[in-house]
Amino acid sequence: MRAVMFDETGISFRENIPQPVCRENEVLVRVLLAGLCETDLQLVQGYMGFHGILGHEFVGVAETGRFAGQRVVGEINCSCGSCETCRQGLATHCPHRTVLGILNHDGAFADYIAIPEANLHRVPDEISTQAAVFTEPLAAAFQIPAQIPLSKEMQVVVLGDGRLGNLCAQVIRLSGATVSVVGKHRRKLDLLEKLGIATELLENLSPDRCADMVVDCTGSPSGLPTACQIIKPRGTIVLKTTVAGTPEMTLAPLVIDEITVVGSRCGPFDRAVSALENAEVEVLPLIDHRLPLSAALEAFEIARTTDTLKILLHVNDP
Amino acid sequence: MRAVMFDETGISFRENIPQPVCRENEVLVRVLLAGLCETDLQLVQGYMGFHGILGHEFVGVAETGRFAGQRVVGEINCSCGSCETCRQGLATHCPHRTVLGILNHDGAFADYIAIPEANLHRVPDEISTQAAVFTEPLAAAFQIPAQIPLSKEMQVVVLGDGRLGNLCAQVIRLSGATVSVVGKHRRKLDLLEKLGIATELLENLSPDRCADMVVDCTGSPSGLPTACQIIKPRGTIVLKTTVAGTPEMTLAPLVIDEITVVGSRCGPFDRAVSALENAEVEVLPLIDHRLPLSAALEAFEIARTTDTLKILLHVNDP
Repeated sequence: MRAVMFDETGISFRENIPQPVCRENEVLVRVLLAGLCETDLQLVQGYMGFHGILGHEFVGVAETGRFAGQRVVGEINCSCGSCETCRQGLATHCPHRTVLGILNHDGAFADYIAIPEANLHRVPDEISTQAAVFTEPLAAAFQIPAQIPLSKEMQVVVLGDGRLGNLCAQVIRLSGATVSVVGKHRRKLDLLEKLGIATELLENLSPDRCADMVVDCTGSPSGLPTACQIIKPRGTIVLKTTVAGTPEMTLAPLVIDEITVVGSRCGPFDRAVSALENAEVEVLPLIDHRLPLSAALEAFEIARTTDTLKILLHVNDP
Repeated sequence: MRAVMFDETGISFRENIPQPVCRENEVLVRVLLAGLCETDLQLVQGYMGFHGILGHEFVGVAETGRFAGQRVVGEINCSCGSCETCRQGLATHCPHRTVLGILNHDGAFADYIAIPEANLHRVPDEISTQAAVFTEPLAAAFQIPAQIPLSKEMQVVVLGDGRLGNLCAQVIRLSGATVSVVGKHRRKLDLLEKLGIATELLENLSPDRCADMVVDCTGSPSGLPTACQIIKPRGTIVLKTTVAGTPEMTLAPLVIDEITVVGSRCGPFDRAVSALENAEVEVLPLIDHRLPLSAALEAFEIARTTDTLKILLHVNDP
């Protein structure tokens, strides 16, 4: 089959990769559409030391199992289900887990992916395949209200006008909280304005310490220090993006101002699917380009420019 | 009066300092006993840029006001009481606040200190002056359960066997949680063992990711990275000490493991006083040395050695 690999030689598009063999409890899914994510860009710079088939945001059609013939999306953490962590209900933190296209598990930039059946969610007919490919990052955004109670009295600032920042802002708005997005890109901020979300250019940001919550979606080492400048005392900073490298920062403000910093990763697929089904969020305006799988290297090049939002890889027709 | 000053020339003991003049709502307190704190050691290395009379842990006798003639301890944050932050109940975070011996307010290493009457708490007769001088750091320890619910099912690790680590461990134990202290100093760990608290030498620490909560009382840039190695996924790390400088650390583990980091500073004096009154904690074994105010420079030298716990400055007889 065709697949986009990453190994010590870099990224490559290949046409002679063996189809994955399903392990116990896994099913085979024929991939239709996949999305490039910031994590993919970091993986090919060495993050996690991953080698294998890239890709973790996808929509496909199950070939086998109870969803056979139906469109599905898939949760990315493949947990053992039997360890202490799993039994405590923290399956996404299973120390034995593999993660699609990220950790010891071939990903979805390929004709086929093998995935535990328990990870699959059927895509309702009301959701287009193009919209459904946003399920995984949208679920990550819904992890914020799953971890931290939001209310309409809250002032929330999202740092970062990229893919995830946009989705987080839309999700936070559903709680009734007042949300604004701070970014560097007028075009991306304009898109948010069109969705009715207030925005501000980073260069105009005034450190007035008014935010009850700041969500860092910058993917930049400067995100947390910037968040510290605008968060209220006793406020909450949510870290939504992993930052490669070791940023230098002083921790004293966290103590002095009694700030809470919450790391936040994968989220509830059910909630993301229902939000797409009920049109609670708009994801299609985020799509900048749609390229064939064979153009994956070009897709990575485009995604690296800071002016893009979402790049999709068309893998197969339905 | 006599006072221990810190300015651009360093620390000095002086005998010709004018007695402080009380501002509106302030009363004069004659200081009996004062404690040296890690923050004092950092202040004289330039932290906060403070110049003035040092000292924020003290017991004294009020000279004026409704506590006149009685022993008192004093909260260190002097808030405006009228700004938005104060009206929201966050007086300890008032942006206009002064802080005794730390920020724009002369401290307690002196014969007299001027302090808002509202900051004072009477010391019950059941509490010795030597024990009462621990009220401020003990209140800081009680800020942990005030911010984060503790339960007897929890495994809590305190990093740091110093003054604050000892008090935090004793306070956390009151919740019924299983607590252990990790430190570098056999003598300090032995003291905790005598109090019935489990301990471990840092060099023997195994990163088994079993702690529901880790409390960083190390005052060291290595505290947070060490905490990340032993905290469970979705666990909570409490930062109790300000760290000068800008430690380099990677933030990715906080996101991947969805860790919550909570900054924690000053705490409830009422609770600390009642804990001392009811002998819920033991503080007297922490006292290593008791020197006269005039020996303050020597006291700072002794406090800088890592083998000491609490150094007290005797200022006046009752």
